[in-house]
Amino acid sequence: MQFRNFKMVDYVVFGRGSFNQLDEILAPKRKSDAPMIFLVDHFFEGKALPSRIPLRGKDKIIFADVTLEPKTKQVDALAQQLKDEFGTVSGIIGIGGGSTMDLAKAVSLMMTNPGSSADYQGWDLVKQPGVYKAGIPTLSGTGAEVSRTTVLTGPTRKLGMNSDFTPFDQIVLDPELTADAPVNQRFYTGMDCYIHCIESLEGTFLNEFSKSYGEKALELCQDVFLKRDHWDATSDDKLMMASYAGGMSIAYSQVGVTHAVSYGLSYLLGTKHGIGNCIVMNHLEEYYPAGVDEFKRMVEKNNIDIPTGVCKGLTDEQFDIMINVSLGMKPLWENALGKDWETIMTREKLRALFERL
Amino acid sequence: MQFRNFKMVDYVVFGRGSFNQLDEILAPKRKSDAPMIFLVDHFFEGKALPSRIPLRGKDKIIFADVTLEPKTKQVDALAQQLKDEFGTVSGIIGIGGGSTMDLAKAVSLMMTNPGSSADYQGWDLVKQPGVYKAGIPTLSGTGAEVSRTTVLTGPTRKLGMNSDFTPFDQIVLDPELTADAPVNQRFYTGMDCYIHCIESLEGTFLNEFSKSYGEKALELCQDVFLKRDHWDATSDDKLMMASYAGGMSIAYSQVGVTHAVSYGLSYLLGTKHGIGNCIVMNHLEEYYPAGVDEFKRMVEKNNIDIPTGVCKGLTDEQFDIMINVSLGMKPLWENALGKDWETIMTREKLRALFERL
Repeated sequence: MQFRNFKMVDYVVFGRGSFNQLDEILAPKRKSDAPMIFLVDHFFEGKALPSRIPLRGKDKIIFADVTLEPKTKQVDALAQQLKDEFGTVSGIIGIGGGSTMDLAKAVSLMMTNPGSSADYQGWDLVKQPGVYKAGIPTLSGTGAEVSRTTVLTGPTRKLGMNSDFTPFDQIVLDPELTADAPVNQRFYTGMDCYIHCIESLEGTFLNEFSKSYGEKALELCQDVFLKRDHWDATSDDKLMMASYAGGMSIAYSQVGVTHAVSYGLSYLLGTKHGIGNCIVMNHLEEYYPAGVDEFKRMVEKNNIDIPTGVCKGLTDEQFDIMINVSLGMKPLWENALGKDWETIMTREKLRALFERL
Repeated sequence: MQFRNFKMVDYVVFGRGSFNQLDEILAPKRKSDAPMIFLVDHFFEGKALPSRIPLRGKDKIIFADVTLEPKTKQVDALAQQLKDEFGTVSGIIGIGGGSTMDLAKAVSLMMTNPGSSADYQGWDLVKQPGVYKAGIPTLSGTGAEVSRTTVLTGPTRKLGMNSDFTPFDQIVLDPELTADAPVNQRFYTGMDCYIHCIESLEGTFLNEFSKSYGEKALELCQDVFLKRDHWDATSDDKLMMASYAGGMSIAYSQVGVTHAVSYGLSYLLGTKHGIGNCIVMNHLEEYYPAGVDEFKRMVEKNNIDIPTGVCKGLTDEQFDIMINVSLGMKPLWENALGKDWETIMTREKLRALFERL
């Protein structure tokens, strides 16, 4: 099809305190005594949130280690563990940031699809709907709550399981859950949304659907990170909507240089997506002059540290790995630099960019 | 639930020319030889659009007379006609403005739910999913393409079949289809969106989800009806997104005085929703001063005629009918005027307002 037929999340609830409706939301989705599995970001271990999860019967909370981004091995192991313990489950509920969202989506799919999640890294390879899955973000910015992908690091590539079966059946957008996020992390994740917007609005792929969503997400990011005096509940509300709108804007747009370069970093060094994008964006004046200028003002106003020197001491082989991964993201480069991108972004130029990071 | 768990349309495709993908979109939804039924606004009878509909097998085009807004009797008769002729159908595809969208949704539901559509006017009374249904708007502004209702005039009331089974399974947003709309009609329907936005953004019910969507829809309306020099393809693109965003903003907001009053007009006089809202908005300086001022500038710039004197010569009984219907819309009044709305909008005050229209 010329225009993507975009699969939406089935149900959305938005509201401060809407997490309290979770029991009521899940009740009709329970299948006899098969449990609901709550995959919760390990950040919440020992905190108050887990005690608010409405456990019934054999329901289980699993704290997911998302120190690194999700790997296909981790997805396969979690799905196998659940099959061994319960045979089947009623649903997978992800509670956390983008990594936890992606992990929950992927585990849901691997409860019903045979083989390894690595077999499904690509486009429309998933053939069976997963078990019921719900996403409850506790960090705003990735857009993973509405995307049709789940980015996984596999044995040979970092690539999502992109399919119409991938989006959540339900998302619960409760901005209260984001109130306790560490300031640096909140910024890095929020910048994922901001950078999405800059890259898609300045790109060569775009239509009015994605433009409308992208403009709104950008305006909300500018509001919370530049205009407002201090961070408060309204900031959490607005950044949660920015993330949602930024995610929707991806339907008919594409990201660009930042993401292509940061994928290289994260493949080699395990740099997480949000901070990786910030490290790269910091050096992209040539490609996004107005966006980078605004980004730097956001960094300054919010008192954030952006790491530098992350590629110091890497070998030629290591630079080559990053360059290969990065140049492999062809649609991103084409969106950013046009059809002739290969004549613009040579290996030498990209190497010099990596060396500056 | 405190916060509505909003059922989204399942699939959205947006793009100029996306109508050409309809055959491909419908193919997997066909059930053996049960036909797809295309309910098409009678405006298109004898025009080019019907010849572009991808008919297969026993598929049928039915031109729907939407001179008046849909009635429960009309819905029931259409569903019965299809059951008599085909037993069952693969789907109902609505192609037209808001009335056609609502008719398609209602007929889909009445293919599987017993009794009369009048039995389901209200909230969450529908118990069975309908047959597959798709909406293809040819006028932008009502938001009916994403709403969970279908406004019907029944024997005792004008009220929608509000349910989680009501939203479309698919919408095809192709701004090319709106290019030939008559200028006055396009304006009236566009103003449905603009007035939605004013009423919900100035209302007392609102959260950041609805605010974000409402602000974007408002900005798009201002752009097409005030800022742009002339009407072109970009205007069609933007107004179609305004309608979509305006419809989404209704999730956690409510309309206000204009809609409450215009429901009275349309119940008694059959005034269609778009033009009815314009007739009322023209006289609401007291409630929405900035909005009415801007509305009047839009009317002037776009050279539109807003009818006046529509209540001239009505009897006391007729005024009473309109007042009763209008005051029955309690949530709209509460949103507009607050909890004490009954002390503000008395019968006398409302009568005086109707007399001015």
